[in-house]
Amino acid sequence: MDKQEFVSKLTIRNDSKILMLIMDGLGGAPEIGGKTELEAANTPNMDMLASASDLGQTVPVIPGITPGSGPGHLGLFGYDPVKYQIGRGILEALGIGLEVSNKDVVARGNFATIRDGIIVDRRAGRPATEENVKVCKLINSKISEIDGVKVRVFPGKEHRFVLKLTGDGLDDKLTDADPQHDNEPIEYAKALSESSKKTAKVVNEFMDRVIDLLKNEDKISGCLLRGFSGYPDLPLFPEVYKIKSAAIATYPMYRGLAKLVGMDVLEVPNAEGEMETLKAEIKVLKDNYDKYDFFYFHVKHTDSYGEDSNFMAKVNVIETVDEVIPEIMSLKPDVIVITGDHSTPALVGGHSWHPVPFLMHSKYSRYGLSSSFNEKECARGSLGTVEARDLMTLLLANAMRLEKYGA
Amino acid sequence: MDKQEFVSKLTIRNDSKILMLIMDGLGGAPEIGGKTELEAANTPNMDMLASASDLGQTVPVIPGITPGSGPGHLGLFGYDPVKYQIGRGILEALGIGLEVSNKDVVARGNFATIRDGIIVDRRAGRPATEENVKVCKLINSKISEIDGVKVRVFPGKEHRFVLKLTGDGLDDKLTDADPQHDNEPIEYAKALSESSKKTAKVVNEFMDRVIDLLKNEDKISGCLLRGFSGYPDLPLFPEVYKIKSAAIATYPMYRGLAKLVGMDVLEVPNAEGEMETLKAEIKVLKDNYDKYDFFYFHVKHTDSYGEDSNFMAKVNVIETVDEVIPEIMSLKPDVIVITGDHSTPALVGGHSWHPVPFLMHSKYSRYGLSSSFNEKECARGSLGTVEARDLMTLLLANAMRLEKYGA
Repeated sequence: MDKQEFVSKLTIRNDSKILMLIMDGLGGAPEIGGKTELEAANTPNMDMLASASDLGQTVPVIPGITPGSGPGHLGLFGYDPVKYQIGRGILEALGIGLEVSNKDVVARGNFATIRDGIIVDRRAGRPATEENVKVCKLINSKISEIDGVKVRVFPGKEHRFVLKLTGDGLDDKLTDADPQHDNEPIEYAKALSESSKKTAKVVNEFMDRVIDLLKNEDKISGCLLRGFSGYPDLPLFPEVYKIKSAAIATYPMYRGLAKLVGMDVLEVPNAEGEMETLKAEIKVLKDNYDKYDFFYFHVKHTDSYGEDSNFMAKVNVIETVDEVIPEIMSLKPDVIVITGDHSTPALVGGHSWHPVPFLMHSKYSRYGLSSSFNEKECARGSLGTVEARDLMTLLLANAMRLEKYGA
Repeated sequence: MDKQEFVSKLTIRNDSKILMLIMDGLGGAPEIGGKTELEAANTPNMDMLASASDLGQTVPVIPGITPGSGPGHLGLFGYDPVKYQIGRGILEALGIGLEVSNKDVVARGNFATIRDGIIVDRRAGRPATEENVKVCKLINSKISEIDGVKVRVFPGKEHRFVLKLTGDGLDDKLTDADPQHDNEPIEYAKALSESSKKTAKVVNEFMDRVIDLLKNEDKISGCLLRGFSGYPDLPLFPEVYKIKSAAIATYPMYRGLAKLVGMDVLEVPNAEGEMETLKAEIKVLKDNYDKYDFFYFHVKHTDSYGEDSNFMAKVNVIETVDEVIPEIMSLKPDVIVITGDHSTPALVGGHSWHPVPFLMHSKYSRYGLSSSFNEKECARGSLGTVEARDLMTLLLANAMRLEKYGA
């Protein structure tokens, strides 16, 4: 059974409001004083909300698996993160804020140092990003089209860039054009199906033309390409769940992920610092509260500081979010869930496999078991340990947006 | 993997006795004083049993899904409630106590007011049930067979009835013969496969003949039919689990569900009030205790009062059941589980998605974690949160009726 298909058939419309507040990488592991970040944080508002909520913890994919942001979010949005995979090229493109459509094939690129057909340095000596920007401009000015396919490169950091091909009949079933090691010959992309032969030809001609264009350069003298990916064919969230859905997020990748599943992505004005950014996001939430019934609200820095192994900074972000909970709750959403897309314990310094604590509040909550929001309470919560993709079903249930199954 | 098939292969016979005590819709949600019905109830006997039991909570289908009685019970009996679906027609038939066999196709019917082929009122002005009974008698006397298929109608309440067709080569793959709205023309059933063409012809001729028969009537002048369903092809419980199985229930639907899975359904004499009904059921249990090894024992009114949002009445039913626990335990079943088929919180006033608390006692229980039986203790119980269909496996395990899997 595809759970999402099963749930979709039971979904009905009403005028309830659902808010999904995601602190990226929320889950932690005990470090300072044997506490997790969420336990160390002073969170009186979330604790008070916990005392009127169901608690539980989610497993993003299966126990023990550490998800990237793609599978982490697909799970939260109710998609099977194993069945639906978002290509690395697409995620890289979303990460630099690139618009992608179903006529595109994108790939992650490295600028490399290539001499006489041999890859001398896969990262071209890690050039300054400005140099990268300059080379991308040059390529875009000289190579705009190959065999009727529009070609554009977009700079990332240092040696990284994104290639975007736009045209009819493109197909992403290609091998990586990257031998993965230095001192190997250039490797061209190979078509893995009849339908991707045209794309392979365009990609390989692009590589040759880049080498030709940069033949007098010392460092950046060619490129490698990998993770070819077309636009993923995902069922659309607003249709699957029959709900007008908006995303409030400041980072390109999360805005892009929400767009991939068909949410409206609302503009958030730039702001300085975490509290100001949060306030800007809340203003967008308030301004659009009447226009949508589902809000995905994303807070980035819990994850960033977890990745940096900065325990106290992650604690501070959690406390900042706690401060704005009363303002968010004053909107009186019918259902709110507070959770993360995965754990990013400062102890690990990266995404991890640990289950993710969640709190879900509605007037139907089976509350009373806990009066604080943290990993320990959630592990013993009223909803137990569930798959991340079950959260959407629970949100809809609490919003009375699901019909009874069977008579 | 089909869990039931897997478990079935490991099943062995012995002379242990298993008792499944189902309080329909047992699970609640906090209402009066922040308590659920089970928490508010004074249940010294179940609490004492809890202190010698494993506790846990079940998810009837998947998290967030509210089951009807059909899927709720299939789960309890160890069946995958998504794989096996019982048609609405069959449930309606079971609900009015109709016998159904594998030569039957049944459907839910409405008597309607039809004028010149237009449905003026889908419910025929909600006639008194006596009128319904009279019309059914008339139809049965005038239309007993169509194309060699035996035709019978059975009155329900007000405008509702059940149509039963009996014959060879019938098939339930038909569209509803019901436009779902007033002021639409009659809609005939359409065959969805070659094998259901004969059934469609019989159904549509039946509809025409009813209209002809009632052409001089003002209110009840035709009928609509929906939810065509044949006898579900379920593996038989006593064979799957190699256990002599009996059902003790007073309501037709639950007796019918037990019969569908192949249990012997024991007669329970009519009695007045909840305590007397319970005593009558216990007498049947005692009288038949030597004849069977598995008993499904059903208590209805926890659900009925939950549906009525009558918190205190549901509490009272739970307390009534608690009073008879010593008498039930005096039979010394090897394993007893006390649970529900789903939650019906008075707060919701209907079936809900909330997990269902359970208590399972045998001499192998990993007891000692709790000394009361309620949602909170069960959420934190020794067996955690499991799918409802895992209960049967746990019962068999505790009864030493399962072989080791693998060497």
